[in-house]
Amino acid sequence: MDTILNHRSIRNFSSREIPQEVLDRILHAATRASTVGNMQVYTLIVSRSAEMRERLSPCHFNQPMVKQAPVVVTVCADINRFSQWCRQRGAEPEYDNFVWFINGTIDAILASQNMSLAAEEEGLGICYLGTTLYTADKIIDILDLPKGVIPITTVIMGYPEIIPQNITDRLPVSGVVMYEKYTPYSEAEIDSIWAEKEALEETQQLIKENNLPNLARIFTDRRYTAADNKLFSEKYFEIVKKQGFIK
Amino acid sequence: MDTILNHRSIRNFSSREIPQEVLDRILHAATRASTVGNMQVYTLIVSRSAEMRERLSPCHFNQPMVKQAPVVVTVCADINRFSQWCRQRGAEPEYDNFVWFINGTIDAILASQNMSLAAEEEGLGICYLGTTLYTADKIIDILDLPKGVIPITTVIMGYPEIIPQNITDRLPVSGVVMYEKYTPYSEAEIDSIWAEKEALEETQQLIKENNLPNLARIFTDRRYTAADNKLFSEKYFEIVKKQGFIK
Repeated sequence: MDTILNHRSIRNFSSREIPQEVLDRILHAATRASTVGNMQVYTLIVSRSAEMRERLSPCHFNQPMVKQAPVVVTVCADINRFSQWCRQRGAEPEYDNFVWFINGTIDAILASQNMSLAAEEEGLGICYLGTTLYTADKIIDILDLPKGVIPITTVIMGYPEIIPQNITDRLPVSGVVMYEKYTPYSEAEIDSIWAEKEALEETQQLIKENNLPNLARIFTDRRYTAADNKLFSEKYFEIVKKQGFIK
Repeated sequence: MDTILNHRSIRNFSSREIPQEVLDRILHAATRASTVGNMQVYTLIVSRSAEMRERLSPCHFNQPMVKQAPVVVTVCADINRFSQWCRQRGAEPEYDNFVWFINGTIDAILASQNMSLAAEEEGLGICYLGTTLYTADKIIDILDLPKGVIPITTVIMGYPEIIPQNITDRLPVSGVVMYEKYTPYSEAEIDSIWAEKEALEETQQLIKENNLPNLARIFTDRRYTAADNKLFSEKYFEIVKKQGFIK
């Protein structure tokens, strides 16, 4: 529980290598996660070599932490392995469709979160890279992913060089949990859910630096713009198709 | 780490209620998970009332454990709350698209896996219900989910009545992890990855009961058939559209 509560994303890693036996324990923990029908329709691709991390780096917008972290794990949904097993047994697999893309995504994230928590228990720091969805086509090329396999996210891990002093702020629990039914948020409720975040000194600083009237505008005008969201949605949807999950 | 390694899905629950303070700790742990851009684009809908669990039960094929478990959590991707916050701040949100459906799905599963592990640390048992994808339309009606909110999975939790003696078998770690690149599986490798599972007495028993030549055929002919996979893929895809994530 302490591991869960103390989580903070690490973006500065020391040069210390992760011993193979530590990595083995972490990867074993990943495989103990719940999985649809006990089918394990995911694959974890571990990049340890400097060459591969170098090649993946532009896919994550050249953030220095990607080359710095000794281990980069590309977390993929994978119906290829299961389908091949079926075919070798004279069974006709039909998992190249949308619901199995989602099942594979869920499986992949369940395994990756077990992996991340196990890594943190081992004294490592981790960071998820959402950039994976934007550059999935390049990642597919670099990692030689066949049809039926698609990158969902990436987790980098290593021994932390700098550990952020505070855990990151979150919305209050009551802001993201509802009981019994989804009740529409009133204007006042929305204000109250975001009140603490908006009042943070860090937020005030960001608004000033960005020269924008509020935090919401930083998201819509800078971080996740309409143009980017549209472009990356079209792009990733095409990749889901190309990898064979939508006919 | 022990919690991760000892996980087994629980399908028989005692009638003991979960105290609110225990549930609060579990839900708090959920919100500590990594989340895209610290936006928390998910919502956890907690069904505690007998009435709501009764109404949800057919969505999960009337498995008795759904009504038995004192808490049923429907785990949703949610861009509605964030978008409303943006609109109230004069920012124009553009998150009703495919990449944010995936971001929301990832966020939802990260939170739900933290929640599940925290529940297990509290002595509860959990089970994921993949049926959520098949009946998402009915769940949307029952829980009054607005546009921008879509069910991804469901976790039931409660104090275990029966704890399975053994943890569930998994493929060997080397079967789901690759280093540096995705290397196509040879026929012999596939055989070796599934060898242990296929040799289990439990598997032999299943094959006999189903009167089929092997385990793969149980998956393709009984558990996840071509007709079902196609039907549920079309259905869920339509729901993703209807909830506003694809235009």
